Amino acid sequence: MAESKKYQDSVGKLTKLLESNLKKVDQEIIYRLDKSIPLINDIGIHLINASGKRLRPLLTLAMAAQLNDYSQNPVILAAAVEFIHTATLLHDDVVDESNLRRGKKTANIIWGNEFSVLAGDFLFAQSFELMVETGSIQALSSLASASCKITQGEFQQMQIAKKPETTRKQYLDVIGKKTAELFGASCESGVIVANGSLVEQKAAYNYGFNLGLAFQIIDDLMDFNAQSKKTGKNLGDDFKLGKTTLPIILAWEKSNTSEKQFWNKTLKELKQDTNDFEKALTIFHKYNIFESCKLKAQEFISKSKISLDQLPDTEIKEHLIGLADESIQRSR
Amino acid sequence: MAESKKYQDSVGKLTKLLESNLKKVDQEIIYRLDKSIPLINDIGIHLINASGKRLRPLLTLAMAAQLNDYSQNPVILAAAVEFIHTATLLHDDVVDESNLRRGKKTANIIWGNEFSVLAGDFLFAQSFELMVETGSIQALSSLASASCKITQGEFQQMQIAKKPETTRKQYLDVIGKKTAELFGASCESGVIVANGSLVEQKAAYNYGFNLGLAFQIIDDLMDFNAQSKKTGKNLGDDFKLGKTTLPIILAWEKSNTSEKQFWNKTLKELKQDTNDFEKALTIFHKYNIFESCKLKAQEFISKSKISLDQLPDTEIKEHLIGLADESIQRSR
Repeated sequence: MAESKKYQDSVGKLTKLLESNLKKVDQEIIYRLDKSIPLINDIGIHLINASGKRLRPLLTLAMAAQLNDYSQNPVILAAAVEFIHTATLLHDDVVDESNLRRGKKTANIIWGNEFSVLAGDFLFAQSFELMVETGSIQALSSLASASCKITQGEFQQMQIAKKPETTRKQYLDVIGKKTAELFGASCESGVIVANGSLVEQKAAYNYGFNLGLAFQIIDDLMDFNAQSKKTGKNLGDDFKLGKTTLPIILAWEKSNTSEKQFWNKTLKELKQDTNDFEKALTIFHKYNIFESCKLKAQEFISKSKISLDQLPDTEIKEHLIGLADESIQRSR
Repeated sequence: MAESKKYQDSVGKLTKLLESNLKKVDQEIIYRLDKSIPLINDIGIHLINASGKRLRPLLTLAMAAQLNDYSQNPVILAAAVEFIHTATLLHDDVVDESNLRRGKKTANIIWGNEFSVLAGDFLFAQSFELMVETGSIQALSSLASASCKITQGEFQQMQIAKKPETTRKQYLDVIGKKTAELFGASCESGVIVANGSLVEQKAAYNYGFNLGLAFQIIDDLMDFNAQSKKTGKNLGDDFKLGKTTLPIILAWEKSNTSEKQFWNKTLKELKQDTNDFEKALTIFHKYNIFESCKLKAQEFISKSKISLDQLPDTEIKEHLIGLADESIQRSR
């Protein structure tokens, strides 16, 4: 709990330092939504009221601020980044709703799919209109490339599902595209519009990319971690869907024949009995899987922090280092 | 039939004149698809083999060629335009599948939704990566704006569904956003990368936009036109879904009390009996609705052609005029 508070500290300090620009990001988000179309307007209210810590736009603003740019361009880019992220969440809903829909009313699902697809498309298209306004084709290129990789990563994630024999390399490739690229581009584009050097751009990208990898590893870990329930994520969702994540891969590598039979039954064939989730946890504990996952995440956090050496020593940089360190502690 | 052949004539002549660049568009499309992801590669094969007349990319190439630009930039933009168009078709599938899914196997639908959403997202993101390569933020702006309007138009289309009392103005606003904006931007962006003047850009946009309006009016008309069945469109699909299109709006305006009761029953409440489609056709014929729709389309075709006065007199321009004229004749 103390550590969970500590995690909020660096984000909290960054949020305070960048408060005025973060408010402008919110204004930009509201302003860009089409008031004449109630459904689109609803997203805005949802986005503003229900949004979490706005991590990605915060990174864009922080990276620009590192280079003393507190102008409107990073604000516009940060809004674009949040639109891209929200668009992908809305489209993920369609995929997830599909899987969860048995037993639910069809009409809601129909409406949900139409709404989620179109609303995501609107936000995605709007994000490019925002980027155009910055006049920076290079920042746009960075975020367009990340957007493309997100969908490639999601395709690949479908392909490795129900395959516990997936390699670590394949998994890292998937989460790199699905999650880390947008973290990388959020940071990189902030430096680009602040006229940072190529070295600084690359450093910002590497900070974000490695942070994103660690972030996703911890996120995947939390699907199995009872103490993380307070974050709002339902325990065991990934397990139920047969999603292949790092804990599964590491456990499969170490499993004996009867344990492999267990994974085959529960994940390949998706035949799960009531206590199978607990049984999976027992195997994880036997092989110290959670600790191994955290070590892997720690590896990427170290890389992430080292990248910052290329950027000026500022108060913001200290908090970016803190943010990276604390992201690991989410899982405790 | 003779006229349907004639319609193909101008497109055919343009296709021949621009053959080499159209082939490059195909190559670009294939090249940009991710070979490592079979699902994405499948779209490529589908796109290349099953594609129709490639009207939108043809317009982009033709507009650039009008200004003597046969270079790679219009080719890249044309591929981007086709990607945007295909992305919207894929996402429309999700909406349509939702409506048609009763009685179909759930697993197919789940796969369909996931596939269509992600594949559309991939093509859309890829289209922006293509546009970035042209280095023209102005062409990118034109197509980003059109992309945004497409989703707004689709939202609005949902809002006017089952409302035969929709005004003509509302309908034109919907099809303007949903269809005509991309026609406009396809033309405009071709002129932009060919370094056309502002007057020429505006002229190209107006040609495309008005052509798009006429195109959609004829498309909506064909849902009720028996002779158009050979085009592959199923008769009465829009009627079954309660879509509000121009024939419905014009018929509602003229209908007497008992006819309005018929529209209320069939379109507002979606209670349709076996012979209700025939009954709708009878009302259309009573009030010459098809002829009125064609007159409206003709109005936009005239505007479309007048816009071309601002562009150089070339062989291509002649065919663009022909293409506009012949687009009306699809419905006969």
